[in-house]
Amino acid sequence: MAGVFELRVAWGDCDEAGIIFYPNYFYWMDCAYQGLLRRAGLDQRKLIERFSILATILVGAHAEFRAPASYEDVISVDALVSNWGEKSFKISYKGMRGDVVIFEGYEMRVWAVRTAEGKIKADVIPGAFKDLLASPHASEG
Amino acid sequence: MAGVFELRVAWGDCDEAGIIFYPNYFYWMDCAYQGLLRRAGLDQRKLIERFSILATILVGAHAEFRAPASYEDVISVDALVSNWGEKSFKISYKGMRGDVVIFEGYEMRVWAVRTAEGKIKADVIPGAFKDLLASPHASEG
Amino acid sequence: MAGVFELRVAWGDCDEAGIIFYPNYFYWMDCAYQGLLRRAGLDQRKLIERFSILATILVGAHAEFRAPASYEDVISVDALVSNWGEKSFKISYKGMRGDVVIFEGYEMRVWAVRTAEGKIKADVIPGAFKDLLASPHASEG
Amino acid sequence: MAGVFELRVAWGDCDEAGIIFYPNYFYWMDCAYQGLLRRAGLDQRKLIERFSILATILVGAHAEFRAPASYEDVISVDALVSNWGEKSFKISYKGMRGDVVIFEGYEMRVWAVRTAEGKIKADVIPGAFKDLLASPHASEG
Repeated sequence: MAGVFELRVAWGDCDEAGIIFYPNYFYWMDCAYQGLLRRAGLDQRKLIERFSILATILVGAHAEFRAPASYEDVISVDALVSNWGEKSFKISYKGMRGDVVIFEGYEMRVWAVRTAEGKIKADVIPGAFKDLLASPHASEG
Repeated sequence: MAGVFELRVAWGDCDEAGIIFYPNYFYWMDCAYQGLLRRAGLDQRKLIERFSILATILVGAHAEFRAPASYEDVISVDALVSNWGEKSFKISYKGMRGDVVIFEGYEMRVWAVRTAEGKIKADVIPGAFKDLLASPHASEG
Repeated sequence: MAGVFELRVAWGDCDEAGIIFYPNYFYWMDCAYQGLLRRAGLDQRKLIERFSILATILVGAHAEFRAPASYEDVISVDALVSNWGEKSFKISYKGMRGDVVIFEGYEMRVWAVRTAEGKIKADVIPGAFKDLLASPHASEG
Repeated sequence: MAGVFELRVAWGDCDEAGIIFYPNYFYWMDCAYQGLLRRAGLDQRKLIERFSILATILVGAHAEFRAPASYEDVISVDALVSNWGEKSFKISYKGMRGDVVIFEGYEMRVWAVRTAEGKIKADVIPGAFKDLLASPHASEG
């Protein structure tokens, strides 16, 4: 995994106890997903245009907070597609402050299209998308 | 479970695809935790004062998004302590729009104190706290 | 002005100093704008569909914080179109905790359309929109 | 003014119209304030410790949005103390995407202390703080 998103914890990211207010970790995971797309020459708009999808929408998200982090800390977030399903995929994240693991987590996303009736449904992930996201990792081990 | 937090999805809660930007679900779970405390006659400040803790800090969080929700939807969130450990506890959440389950999730929180050296460590959850959070549910079924 | 949005300050809305992290006030002003639309039988999606606009986009925003507010406070926000320009309008906000003014502010919004070339430009506000937003206030005094 | 904070607009920073949800601009102004402190060898915690204040709390904030910005845009934010009062000061901000001014704004902050009774009140800004924030600018023109 190579770092795809870096952030410095802002004053407003922490709560009254001086600790990161935890929904921010998921915001950063989402940012790292965009970093993963960017590295593949994509972004969420290009994805929507090129593949005529609605979005790669979330069906699940999970995080574990390993060590406290706070105001002014710099955290580097890595991202990796850790599992490809037929219509969904799992992205795994790891946030580090130097050598210290701050959090680990994952997102489950589905390849979602809008039907003619306006409903949202999962569709088969095209091989072209898998190739774009997978190939940089091949050489990075 | 009785509803402890209700929200109306705001314009700013949705992303460009017109779907709730998912970190908001965790914000709402945190709000529902506060609703759970409120129903027990507590809030996070009283908790900190009365029990001399730093906070009930998060070590994990998880959510599954069951059905799409969007701008102007009203969602009612239920919360329940679903497991008591010695030093940590699990709170389960369910968000409903009318009869439709929108999301389900949980938080793992630890009873955290600051040591004399300024470190954060988990401590044994006092029975008084368990009683306060548990008792309302007994009668509410 | 009648209250169009009410909120309870959440734990995550406050910073390490135990005071509301101020960008939240603007989020609540935006929520109150939606309350104003709702009272007129509108919402931002209906507005976009009915009038074929892109949005009522912001060109300016201002707030003054009159009294501190914090975790668990309940704040009621009033909203009123305080000035109609040809292509823009001003919405004034006031947030109260009981009798105490917590904040006052305004937004300047333009009636924005997308040109054939994909640019965003201001257009003349239709009288029908002004009537919808103005009329409820006439009778409410 | 030298850039003190840089950001890349994230997917979650934009609303359904594909435009930045405007409270984020104020979050970025707050981040730039921290950048200004950092450049002076300070941060908000050091400020609180060294000068025994509660915080440099906001009494007003203003922004004007000059040009639309959106997902994946990189914005550099400059900050400058543009006015020193006895107990308050004004920080001016400008956000640029390359040569394009995206937004301009300011914050009014007071040097706030907590009285023995627990109230928040404005106090005289020490010269040492003014010197720390002012001096880097002198040489930077």
